This record gives sequence, structure tokens and C-alpha cells, in this order.
Amino acid sequence: MSAEKAPQLLALDWGTTSLRAFLVTADGTAVERLSAPRGILQLKDGDFAADYEEIAGDWLARYPQLPAIACGMIGSRQGWREAPYAEAPAGLAELAKGLVSVAGRNGHRLAIVPGVVYRAAAAPPDVMRGEETQMLGALADADPAGPTVFVLPGTHSKWAIAEAGRIVWFATFMTGELYAVLKAESILGRLMTGEGEDTRSFRLGLARAADASPAAGALLHKLFSARSLALFDELPATGIASYLSGLLIGSEIDEALAAVSARLGLRPLCVTLIGEAALSRLYREALGARGIEGRLAEPDATARGLLAIAQAAGLLGW
Amino acid sequence: MSAEKAPQLLALDWGTTSLRAFLVTADGTAVERLSAPRGILQLKDGDFAADYEEIAGDWLARYPQLPAIACGMIGSRQGWREAPYAEAPAGLAELAKGLVSVAGRNGHRLAIVPGVVYRAAAAPPDVMRGEETQMLGALADADPAGPTVFVLPGTHSKWAIAEAGRIVWFATFMTGELYAVLKAESILGRLMTGEGEDTRSFRLGLARAADASPAAGALLHKLFSARSLALFDELPATGIASYLSGLLIGSEIDEALAAVSARLGLRPLCVTLIGEAALSRLYREALGARGIEGRLAEPDATARGLLAIAQAAGLLGW
Repeated sequence: MSAEKAPQLLALDWGTTSLRAFLVTADGTAVERLSAPRGILQLKDGDFAADYEEIAGDWLARYPQLPAIACGMIGSRQGWREAPYAEAPAGLAELAKGLVSVAGRNGHRLAIVPGVVYRAAAAPPDVMRGEETQMLGALADADPAGPTVFVLPGTHSKWAIAEAGRIVWFATFMTGELYAVLKAESILGRLMTGEGEDTRSFRLGLARAADASPAAGALLHKLFSARSLALFDELPATGIASYLSGLLIGSEIDEALAAVSARLGLRPLCVTLIGEAALSRLYREALGARGIEGRLAEPDATARGLLAIAQAAGLLGW
Repeated sequence: MSAEKAPQLLALDWGTTSLRAFLVTADGTAVERLSAPRGILQLKDGDFAADYEEIAGDWLARYPQLPAIACGMIGSRQGWREAPYAEAPAGLAELAKGLVSVAGRNGHRLAIVPGVVYRAAAAPPDVMRGEETQMLGALADADPAGPTVFVLPGTHSKWAIAEAGRIVWFATFMTGELYAVLKAESILGRLMTGEGEDTRSFRLGLARAADASPAAGALLHKLFSARSLALFDELPATGIASYLSGLLIGSEIDEALAAVSARLGLRPLCVTLIGEAALSRLYREALGARGIEGRLAEPDATARGLLAIAQAAGLLGW
């Protein structure tokens, strides 16, 4: 390993159900990585220090002076130590200022990145933990002059607007979780057969979501169409899951675009997608059906975001 | 029992999870009744004739000439015999025409009421089984000159418009099922504590649903507010279930009112509620918050609807 490629940071993305860890060089490259199903909900007795040692112990033995930083639910009330939310607008400086620190075994310190809260008058607050770091990592790659609209699909999808290096607005959509519970527990799930994607049914769901006429109703009514279309063989049982996916993703996009457009005063023509590959592909298609380009962020945005926050906090010593 | 009060009809409301049966007099009074957890999904081997005998055998022995009629999922493809959907507009004549008949043990015939399908151009079909009978029963009590808007809250809530004794339009909303699966399986359910209603939180959910500004998003975003408000102690853990209930019921009402108003060309000031008492009370409050009176239908609308259909079909012999 050349000197330029020597790791400068141990970076952890420590979420609810999984943990990913990276050895990151000064240019943001992840030269080593590991992942484990050791999210904060998986820990038996909440002994985060023991888990941290088990995950990162080898690296810490090899690089005892390496600074370490983590983002995600590890900083929540249920995590290792609560890192209180930074208020939006929030960028590298605000997140660096909000770092909290815990001591692992052998005295290794681990800095924990705060989440971000967005507050608006007369509306409930919204929160994120981990996504702020992904977005700032993507901005470290390419921060355009104008605003950037981010879409982070998942269990709780996030849409966000960044301007001049700071997250100025965001909103959460329970799309992925709704899909999961409806598939697992509802009459729609009981009607589903087969595995895999059905492109035609997905597009049918997208189109149903897009019908904004009063007669078409909104999501509570449209969900039932997955049942009624199947009843009359207008939707194959093997396509119900994809139809539901298209209906929910399309509904999220329409909700979010209205909010983003109201905030920006214009409709975005391009958004930056950060997420798992298969899901990002579905969102790209759904966005394309609305005339919007979904650009995929470079991989490992979290590692680069953690590096940027650590740099802003002076953790790297240079 | 006087002659006037002699039962004229054995009437069954035979649904997915439960069965209710009535001995009905000529004026629509249910003089005897029973209910059992014997919905079509509870039957072990689909031997509906055996179940019917077990439920109604005593009555049929006492009144061997009594005509019998059933509505609900017993007429679905998974029921005793499929009674194909009647097309809306549908009233007593259309339902009577669509009756199918099965033979119980001892040769007793049972007539089964068809469900109703509503088809509109460029929209998925919608369906009901059982609700059509409840509504026609309520219309038998009071059929005003103008249109009647019905609301039947439940797992799959129905909104419908009846004109001149026929159901001309309806739509289904998956409100109750969404509430159940989110309560049982989602992060929102895991955050809930305590039992019982919390009126303040219910009203907070109603108000959140009513915010139609683009920035407020729609249901996928609003659902997350149950989590974020609880996180900042703006919603007690004991109130999350009621908040979710208010959010979902309020969203259903707003979706449905838009569709009903588009159909009628005016916003209804009064709707007729048919449903379980506690749920109807919540809907009355939610409707009231939108300036709409929710009138409760007389109990046993199903029994009177079945009587009216049996009369229209000439089953009563007079």
C-alpha cells in the first residue's frame, strides 16, 4: 500500500438493521470495507463498545492512531450516545459542530454525527440520521451552482434540497415501509403470487398514481385498485406486487415533486438518486415517466461524507 | 307471537369473518337474531351447507316454508356459490334479478344476493358485496327526493351515491386495513403504547390530514409525522394510535368528498353513516370537522335490505 493510499479515517455507517464500515484514504476512496447485520436493533444487550471492538478491532490494531467516525441511528436515543439533531439548514460545519464522542475499548474514540431536523411553521418536524452524510458526500463529488434535489429511496424515503453545500429542506415518505406491511399483512399481499418484477404491472401502477382527477381519489382509494383489477383479471396475480410498487413510488414522486416545486418555485428536471441499485432503477424509471432525469450518485457517498465531516471537525490532523 | 309478528324471512349477512342471521317480519323487524364467527374464511372445509344447517337448522325446523336469503362474501368466488356482480346503477330490481340459489340440507333453498360492480371509463372497476344490501335497507327506511351519500366505514370503507332507489356510484378506501397493518407491523405500531382513544391526538391527526398545501405532502409524507411528532414529545406515545386514526379517516374523507363532489357537482352537507357504533362516532366527529353532518342509519339495515330484495324477487309469495 503506497503512502498516498494509507487510510486516513475509519468510517462507519451504523444504522437500524445493518452496519457498514470503511477504511478511507485522503481522497475519499474506500480501500477496505466490511458490512454486518449488526444494526442497533440487532444488538442483544446494547453493548455498543463490544460490538465496535468486534467489528473494527483488527483495523484499530493495525492503525491505532486512526480517527474514527460514525453516522446513522447509532447517534439516536436508542443508539450508543444521542447526538442531538442539527437544525436545517445544515452542512459540514453544522454537522462537525454537533459531533459527540464515545470511548471504545482500548481508549479508541469514536465521533458520532448528529442527524438533522427540519422545522417549518405550522407543520410537524421532519428528521433524518445518516442520509445527511450521504448527501454531503455526494455534494463533495459535485456541488453545482444551483440547488440539488436529492432522492434517497427506501423504507423511509427522503427527498431533500441542498443549496451552497447545506441541506435546506427535506421530507420523509413512508413508501418502503408501507409496501412491506401491505405485502406481508394485507389482503393485497394474500392475493400476490410469484416473485420478481413485472414491468407492465409496475407501469400500470405508476399510471394509476398519476391520475390526479378528483374522481380518481388518492392513495387510500387507489390501493384498492390492486384488488379490483386482479378480481377482473386486468392485473395478473404475479403482477400485484409490482403494481403496488409502481402505485406507491409514483405517489411518493407526485407528493414530493409538489412540495419540492413549491419550495423552489420551479419543477426540477433532474434529481440525484442515492440508494440501493435495484430500487434506484425503479425510481429512475418512475421519474422518467414524469419527465425527470434521475442521476445516480457515485457509490460510497457515505464514506466520502464522513471524510468531509471529519475534515471539517479537524479530526484528521491536517 | 302474534300473526303480524310471524317471521316472513330468514335473512343472513354472511361475510368474510362473521355471520349474522335474522328472523324478519313483514315490516322489517328482526324478531330473533344470532351471530357467529363463521365467516367464509373460518370454514374449515368449505362445507357451507353443513354450516348453514348448524346456524339456521332450528329456525328452519320451526318454519319449514320460510324463504331464506343471504348477502355478503358468501356470494363471492370463495363463497358457497358465486353470484356475479350486478352493474351499477343497481337497485332492488337489479339485485333481485341477479339472485342465485343453492340447496341446503333437507332441500331448503337459500337465495344469494349479487354484489355490485361500478365501472367508469379509464379507471379500475370497484366492487362491493353486502354493502349494497345495507344501503338499500337504509333507503327502504327513508329515500329522499335528491341523492343520498352513504358512508360505510370499515376495513374497506365504502362511499356511495344513491339516486331514485339505485346505487349509481361508489368507491372503496382501504382505510381500516391500512390502520390495522400499520398498527400491527410498522414502526408507528412499535411506538404506540396504551389502549383507548385520545381525543386530542385524533383531532391533531384530522387537522394534519386537512392540510392540502403542496408543502404538506399527502399521505405517504403525513404518515411519518406520527413518528416525528412523537420523537419531539409533541404527541404522546399513548396518542399515536388515535393520531394515526384521525390522519387516515381525515384523509379518506377528503379523498372521498372530492370524488363525490365531482360526481354530484356540489359538496354534500349531510351523509348517511352505516357501521359499527364506535367507528361511526369517529367518522361523525371527523365529518363534523369538515362541516358535514353524519346521520346514523337505523340499525339492522341489512335485514331490511334483504327483506326488500326478497320482496322484489317475489320470494315472499305476496
